Amino acid sequence: MEKRMARQMNPLDASWLFVDSARTPMQVGVLAIFSLPDDAGSDFIKNLFAHLRKPSGFAAPFNLKLRGSRLLPGAHRLIPAWIEETRIDLDYHLRHSALPQPGGERELGVLISRLHSYPLDFSKPLWECHIIEGLENDRFALYMKMHHSLVDGVGGMRMLSRLLSADPNVVDLPPPWASGSGEKSHAGKSAGANWQQLIEQARRQAQFVPSLAKAIGETWKESLQHRHPELGSPFRAPLSLLNGKIGAQRRFATQHYDLARIRALAKRAKGTVNDVFLCLCAGALRRYLEELGVLPDEPLTAGLPVSVRANDDVGSGNAISFIIANLHTHIADPLERLAAIRKSTQLAKQRFQNLPREAINSYTSLFMAPFMLQLLSGLGGITRPMFNLTISNVPGPDSIRYFNGAKMEQMYPVSLLAHGQALNITVFSYAGQFNVGYTGCRDTLPHVQRLSVYTGEALEELETLLGAAGS
Amino acid sequence: MEKRMARQMNPLDASWLFVDSARTPMQVGVLAIFSLPDDAGSDFIKNLFAHLRKPSGFAAPFNLKLRGSRLLPGAHRLIPAWIEETRIDLDYHLRHSALPQPGGERELGVLISRLHSYPLDFSKPLWECHIIEGLENDRFALYMKMHHSLVDGVGGMRMLSRLLSADPNVVDLPPPWASGSGEKSHAGKSAGANWQQLIEQARRQAQFVPSLAKAIGETWKESLQHRHPELGSPFRAPLSLLNGKIGAQRRFATQHYDLARIRALAKRAKGTVNDVFLCLCAGALRRYLEELGVLPDEPLTAGLPVSVRANDDVGSGNAISFIIANLHTHIADPLERLAAIRKSTQLAKQRFQNLPREAINSYTSLFMAPFMLQLLSGLGGITRPMFNLTISNVPGPDSIRYFNGAKMEQMYPVSLLAHGQALNITVFSYAGQFNVGYTGCRDTLPHVQRLSVYTGEALEELETLLGAAGS
Repeated sequence: MEKRMARQMNPLDASWLFVDSARTPMQVGVLAIFSLPDDAGSDFIKNLFAHLRKPSGFAAPFNLKLRGSRLLPGAHRLIPAWIEETRIDLDYHLRHSALPQPGGERELGVLISRLHSYPLDFSKPLWECHIIEGLENDRFALYMKMHHSLVDGVGGMRMLSRLLSADPNVVDLPPPWASGSGEKSHAGKSAGANWQQLIEQARRQAQFVPSLAKAIGETWKESLQHRHPELGSPFRAPLSLLNGKIGAQRRFATQHYDLARIRALAKRAKGTVNDVFLCLCAGALRRYLEELGVLPDEPLTAGLPVSVRANDDVGSGNAISFIIANLHTHIADPLERLAAIRKSTQLAKQRFQNLPREAINSYTSLFMAPFMLQLLSGLGGITRPMFNLTISNVPGPDSIRYFNGAKMEQMYPVSLLAHGQALNITVFSYAGQFNVGYTGCRDTLPHVQRLSVYTGEALEELETLLGAAGS
Repeated sequence: MEKRMARQMNPLDASWLFVDSARTPMQVGVLAIFSLPDDAGSDFIKNLFAHLRKPSGFAAPFNLKLRGSRLLPGAHRLIPAWIEETRIDLDYHLRHSALPQPGGERELGVLISRLHSYPLDFSKPLWECHIIEGLENDRFALYMKMHHSLVDGVGGMRMLSRLLSADPNVVDLPPPWASGSGEKSHAGKSAGANWQQLIEQARRQAQFVPSLAKAIGETWKESLQHRHPELGSPFRAPLSLLNGKIGAQRRFATQHYDLARIRALAKRAKGTVNDVFLCLCAGALRRYLEELGVLPDEPLTAGLPVSVRANDDVGSGNAISFIIANLHTHIADPLERLAAIRKSTQLAKQRFQNLPREAINSYTSLFMAPFMLQLLSGLGGITRPMFNLTISNVPGPDSIRYFNGAKMEQMYPVSLLAHGQALNITVFSYAGQFNVGYTGCRDTLPHVQRLSVYTGEALEELETLLGAAGS
């Protein structure tokens, strides 16, 4: 069996293995909820399994497992490489589960929390796909979990999307493990795909990130030092409840809104959808932390991927990059908070465009390396965080999708956490919906579902204040 | 919080932590199946949870967690001690699950296999209790899982038994985590409760076990060398499919019989219930391994706890000890095999009685130390095993028991495995039933449920041959 060719691992992919631990499993998930077709027989789920089991082949990355033994703790920290698993135990990876009565959102959240807390088996390909029945109102769910070394959140959503069709009559799309993905370079095609280069890349990142963080900070300081001291800088976020060491267990909560409601608010407030959403999150966080008696005096900051076009970017389309927004959680008044957040994101984007081109293009390094550095250096959860939490917005399918004729009602991200980052709020947009997934550390954050409730109430409050209620 | 008093751990308990690994989690489980009372409303399960949540206090060992951090791999290998957890997250430990349709024994087996494969969270008290609904024919199940450092299989069953009553009208027995257990010495009451003594105990065991094994072997050899070469000796078992390195995933299967059927066979064959059961297991194993094309030419052996009274034992009752029985899996004819097994166990017990008293009294050391030694020395799954598998028989309640009015239909053991021991067959007797739990390594043993089916067919075959069918 060991004749199989080992494949060099992309250094960035490998970095997710280095920081993987019992308390911080680096796994990402997607949860999709479907309604049964009107004409679905009682054997719909059974037939779905038959369909999913039909293909006999497995495509990368679903057929890749780590080379070498994980028998000894720390053994996975050796030079990582993928090998192809030729005998895949599909019944292990594809799982059938059910919710207890009444099968509501609460029961689903509890099950997803558990499934997302369990570690993957590192001696097998690092993915699981769960079909969950017993969801009330004739619905079922699909939860897919993969290691971040194989796929990122966006890639996971895209992978799942390939199982879906815009046509309810299409019932023969192969499962993602049969069709595979082109998301990551798993076969050593990428440059910098050996161990030596990994070390060099880590070194380069280590050099690059502080200078970039400094550049951002200086840019901000330079123009804002006195005019906008409240905007803050990277690594100056307050050390809040969200930023200590975390435990192994997760809490997962969801909320979904009509995108139109948020768009209407953004229009009235002359801001972006993202500004409004940040304001809602800030309001929810403020209330949540205040109730626990641990709201920091200093405002919380959020790291968020944004669309930024550099000044010297003559190419088409937007460059995706990363800014740190001030959530102004110290401001009680929602309108005042929204205005402050809007200003913060606008200025951050403007300043960002003045950064060197290489920084703009280094979204991935900037987005992930600080995590990596803090974690690898053992500082995660001890030093001041670069930011207090990640709030991310990932565009999904813009029209209704079907899975073997079953309409997808919502799809949610289930994110990973790290020491120093006990909460992640990520949105998948889908067919005019805004689907928010809250992934939190169970031990640190009691009642994460309150955050989703408070976000909804913050939305209603803002609608009332902006005179947009009922629109 | 760290002001809490750390409790020394019993060295034997601690040894289970030393050999715990991602692939060999040292956790034991009990599965009990209940039928809903005739007058059960739709809120029976809900009320059950309310009852289980009622007590606010937690008793040892359910309130004990490991001292120190498990953040770093291997950190649990430091000197272990228990501390009392004062803020127990009951919603984490007490879990509500459900089976997918049709909710049969197959679906239950799949769920228990998964739950028993997932590791416990070492930063919390090392137990979980799952109430599982959706079992067909108006039944539900309870699965309780604990780390072996807190409880052994017998202790776990006894702990569960305290939740049960012989009276269907008794509905107020507190859950085990409120009533606690006196099974193990968790508060450092036992002698030999410090690290130094642990090392000494390990040394003593290391010296003791080979000499005891040698004594057994010599005793056997002396009287049997030429007359019964087929009886074998410890560490002379063939290296079979059952005795390699194992993976992290488990398969669990069950089978239950009327004890009367096995008793009737034992009477006709002039053997014991245990002899008959060993013969059924041997027949099932023979067929299972033969179908896979891996039946060893040499007979498999089983380690089994038995009731033995030493010659110089003037005390009351029986001493429980441990023998290695030859399963004679090379013999195709069931009657011939049964006769050979009967002879093997009779002779083993006779020889055992000639062993020094201290050996007879050292059930625990003998039963567990070989595992420990093989595992600690890294030899588990590489050297010839001391025996091929453990077959164990644990007496449970002898009359029907009820859990808040719900009749307990069956109760099964869910056992732990180790490198070199990929299969465990343990029986709980209960109210005239013989409830067999098969715990196997998923990667090593395909279709463990076949073993349970083949055991049943071996029973029918033996009944036909002994003219006991229909009795």
